Amino acid sequence: MSASLRALLDVLLFEWLDVEALSTRPRFAEQGRSEWAAMLDAAERIARGVCAPANRACDEQEPRLDAAGRVQLPASTAKALQAYTQSGLSAATQDAEWGGLQLPCAVAMAANAFVSKASVGVAGYALLSTGNANLILAHGNEAQCEVFARPLLAGRWFGTMCLSEPAVGSSLGDLTTRARPDGVDFESDPLGPRYRLRGSKMWISGADHELAENIVHLVLAKVPLADGSLPEGSAALSLFIVPKLRVAADGNVLALRNGVVLAGLNHKLGWRGTVNGLLNFGEDDDCLGYRIGAEGQGLACMFHMMNEARIGVGLGAAMLAMAGFETSMAYARERRQGRAIGQRSGAMVALTEHADVRRMLLAQKAVAEGALALCLYCARLVDEGEDELLALLTPIAKSWPSQWGLEANSLAIQVLGGAGYTRDWPVEQYWRDQRLNMIHEGTHGIQALDLLLRKASRPQALAALAARINATVEAALQRPELAAQANQLAAALALVGRATKAAWSAGDPGQAALHATPYLQAFGHLVLAWIWLDLARVDGDAGRAAARDYFYAYELPLVNAWLQPVLAGALLLRDLDPETL
Amino acid sequence: MSASLRALLDVLLFEWLDVEALSTRPRFAEQGRSEWAAMLDAAERIARGVCAPANRACDEQEPRLDAAGRVQLPASTAKALQAYTQSGLSAATQDAEWGGLQLPCAVAMAANAFVSKASVGVAGYALLSTGNANLILAHGNEAQCEVFARPLLAGRWFGTMCLSEPAVGSSLGDLTTRARPDGVDFESDPLGPRYRLRGSKMWISGADHELAENIVHLVLAKVPLADGSLPEGSAALSLFIVPKLRVAADGNVLALRNGVVLAGLNHKLGWRGTVNGLLNFGEDDDCLGYRIGAEGQGLACMFHMMNEARIGVGLGAAMLAMAGFETSMAYARERRQGRAIGQRSGAMVALTEHADVRRMLLAQKAVAEGALALCLYCARLVDEGEDELLALLTPIAKSWPSQWGLEANSLAIQVLGGAGYTRDWPVEQYWRDQRLNMIHEGTHGIQALDLLLRKASRPQALAALAARINATVEAALQRPELAAQANQLAAALALVGRATKAAWSAGDPGQAALHATPYLQAFGHLVLAWIWLDLARVDGDAGRAAARDYFYAYELPLVNAWLQPVLAGALLLRDLDPETL
Repeated sequence: MSASLRALLDVLLFEWLDVEALSTRPRFAEQGRSEWAAMLDAAERIARGVCAPANRACDEQEPRLDAAGRVQLPASTAKALQAYTQSGLSAATQDAEWGGLQLPCAVAMAANAFVSKASVGVAGYALLSTGNANLILAHGNEAQCEVFARPLLAGRWFGTMCLSEPAVGSSLGDLTTRARPDGVDFESDPLGPRYRLRGSKMWISGADHELAENIVHLVLAKVPLADGSLPEGSAALSLFIVPKLRVAADGNVLALRNGVVLAGLNHKLGWRGTVNGLLNFGEDDDCLGYRIGAEGQGLACMFHMMNEARIGVGLGAAMLAMAGFETSMAYARERRQGRAIGQRSGAMVALTEHADVRRMLLAQKAVAEGALALCLYCARLVDEGEDELLALLTPIAKSWPSQWGLEANSLAIQVLGGAGYTRDWPVEQYWRDQRLNMIHEGTHGIQALDLLLRKASRPQALAALAARINATVEAALQRPELAAQANQLAAALALVGRATKAAWSAGDPGQAALHATPYLQAFGHLVLAWIWLDLARVDGDAGRAAARDYFYAYELPLVNAWLQPVLAGALLLRDLDPETL
Repeated sequence: MSASLRALLDVLLFEWLDVEALSTRPRFAEQGRSEWAAMLDAAERIARGVCAPANRACDEQEPRLDAAGRVQLPASTAKALQAYTQSGLSAATQDAEWGGLQLPCAVAMAANAFVSKASVGVAGYALLSTGNANLILAHGNEAQCEVFARPLLAGRWFGTMCLSEPAVGSSLGDLTTRARPDGVDFESDPLGPRYRLRGSKMWISGADHELAENIVHLVLAKVPLADGSLPEGSAALSLFIVPKLRVAADGNVLALRNGVVLAGLNHKLGWRGTVNGLLNFGEDDDCLGYRIGAEGQGLACMFHMMNEARIGVGLGAAMLAMAGFETSMAYARERRQGRAIGQRSGAMVALTEHADVRRMLLAQKAVAEGALALCLYCARLVDEGEDELLALLTPIAKSWPSQWGLEANSLAIQVLGGAGYTRDWPVEQYWRDQRLNMIHEGTHGIQALDLLLRKASRPQALAALAARINATVEAALQRPELAAQANQLAAALALVGRATKAAWSAGDPGQAALHATPYLQAFGHLVLAWIWLDLARVDGDAGRAAARDYFYAYELPLVNAWLQPVLAGALLLRDLDPETL
């Protein structure tokens, strides 16, 4: 069925997003549809050949520590990652001078879609490492780029992002890892200002393993004040490059550990392909780190990677939904069970003949393909440098595929019935894997606050989105068969606009925050309704038209329901005394 | 926190459902609130003392076969079940002459609530065995009751229900297990008409184990026609008692297996405490079964057990939701993270101070406590013999806790964040366990068809429910603080009434079936809104008032959204060509 993903990607990239228009830019001068198609072919081959076969093994053979304290992973994980990095995908969008392919973001994301669908657990290492390298190239000095980013982009080293701590999850201003300047000449190290770090970092994906020659940890920490205390708040955070093994100024890996110790593994419900653990830094004051960017600019630097990671989470969520859709679709076509209502004899019919199974398949398709389209749209905004709109859509691209992808994966289990509840089929793993997406890279609630308090409080961002939605409405009104949906979309846009005002009616962020999550959900459905209708501008595929019709008939009405407490200004969540619960 | 469940049960049983009114009946003459309270105390002790401690072990040590083909379970499972059966709960509602406690159903269900909350996997064996015995007492001859039901009620034997087959899930008329009369004198066996069975039964919970002296399988099968072929349809099904070990007429277990072979175990996503497998009957023509009830009455008999099992599923789902609520509540009170919006310094606050966490806690409470109230209400209908209303509410009691309990368990994970995604906390297991509830004992889609095509097509059943809802509305209208919710409830009732007519507007079950699942969801939310408002008649608890307010503000508006395609008569699901997907 993977052929259908390729067909979908062709429509999205070349018909809808007009990626070919990019060929006229000097950066993409040597490229065009045939080169990009070849890249998609290569990614699909790797995904099918080595990533998909690794997916079950990495779930069943959860990462564990051997007697020497080394992380043990299935051999198929290493094999899949080797093929991935050899394909050049690790540096897909980077400049040629860094070994990059200089692909448009939209094409690179489309290629990664195959890999994410085959195994999010395997893809995890690669996407983190690429994001890590991209951050260093954006904010690092020349030596840091050369020494750390280059081997990351080549796939020889892997990377992590170290934000959370055991006592601090979402509240980054409260981080307590400290970085002390290492000697009076600390600023003269060729690898950047040198510090000694001390602290613990929790929930670190790719924390330790034997997959690469070295691991580059990007660590948020605070430089203590003169009295040794830590400054308060996130403005005090700086970012540090902390290699697992020490590195010489020329980039050679030294056979010397750098005071980064894996203190334990997390035993996860899913997404077990990517090892995750607790790291202790500098237990013996032996952990060197090199500051990247200015002091106090740590969070700003990290958000370079976070935003990329958030859209990456959305893509992974979309592809898990797609994997479940494909599996349950194939099953429903094959499996014969029951017959039409009222028919009591004769041959049994395929599951696809039953109304409720059709509902569950359409719902999955609307989620999986809509979410993929949204992520590619965001990638296209990166290619256009449309930062304002991209910033507004990022919390949607992260949260919507995560929330509804989970529902889609649950429907995939439901289509298979009892079989779906067993480990004989992959759909239960997809569902477990998917559950992480509402948690990592900023929880669902954090995305909601980001949207309502930060992004949607900027009139120009909202106006940019409204202009695009209105253009889609105008175009659809020209086509009688789409006019009703165009009006539905316009009404939903107006309602979300009213809800934005209602949430901010007191001009008080604390009061607005009461409404953040229902607002996020409603906003997300508005955006997806727009994506689906906009796609109809160029796409006449009958199956996708059915998914769009499903979305408008069954899903879009939810916007009104979700916004009721927002429009009513409900204060229940403020006034609640939690002791009474 | 279990104290709070007890307090809730006291309110539900004694203030809301007025169970004490039953004391005036001769059947409950020796009983009253203090006896029932003692029973609840006993159940809570067992749940806390031996069931809860068994819950993680039965998940981690999944059932497996030893070298001799015997099912191996953790010792703690056997210990918990022993305590359960010794308490008399297996025969809680049965007559004293069968060793029963003659408890009202509502009290028995309340007692079982503690056990289900502690471990659905452990409770599974007991609830199945009780249902099995109750069916035999209702439909069996005297010898069958004496020989099979009595040891089941005493907890010495365990029971199963055998419906599905490898090729047949929900479509029971297509079952192919055959039962051939065993000799010309087959009707003269003291244990009932004797047959030889042959076939395979899939998804059998409690299929085989060493927990009991014997296992009683209740097996649906067809008696072949004279030409050896099987009659079509579910009207051809008969029900058979098939013991694992042969039994003498006096009830003694013979050391002789009865041609029932465990062909394999299912490896499930959750609910691993209850062993589940494939049974082969009569591979060597060596499987004796005793018909219970008349030929062709198999499904009618089985529904005796199925209806009980469906409400039991609802109770288990409610209690899984409750378990997740309690865990996440305790965590949210303890864990300090972040501060109020806009506050950048000072001590961190408890998670319960954050609006979105409050939302997630209230949502869980509204589901868990509302679902428990609904199940107890159904049990009270059993005590009153209100069969018509009970039949209408059964698909809701099964489906609503299952669907929204899953969402509640997902929210419990979300409250814990990354910690909730690890096996260090029980919430991930609750979520996995819960996922089965939309599948077993009639899938979610089957419940929807049962509601719309069968139950809601009986005007007198709908009228009975509407009368009760209207009475609640009238009472609430007398109290200014409840008047708005009373009006919301009345509007929802009217809307569901319109949707019933719309779904049946063509008088065509096939067309009505297109709308069954959204209708089920809307109907369920209507019922729960009614339950919550009705509870307010007698209950002034602030936490429950907040949960009710949450339900009316955030959940009830969904009814309107879900019913849009029903009211519009959307034919998308009929007209879809699944080949285009």
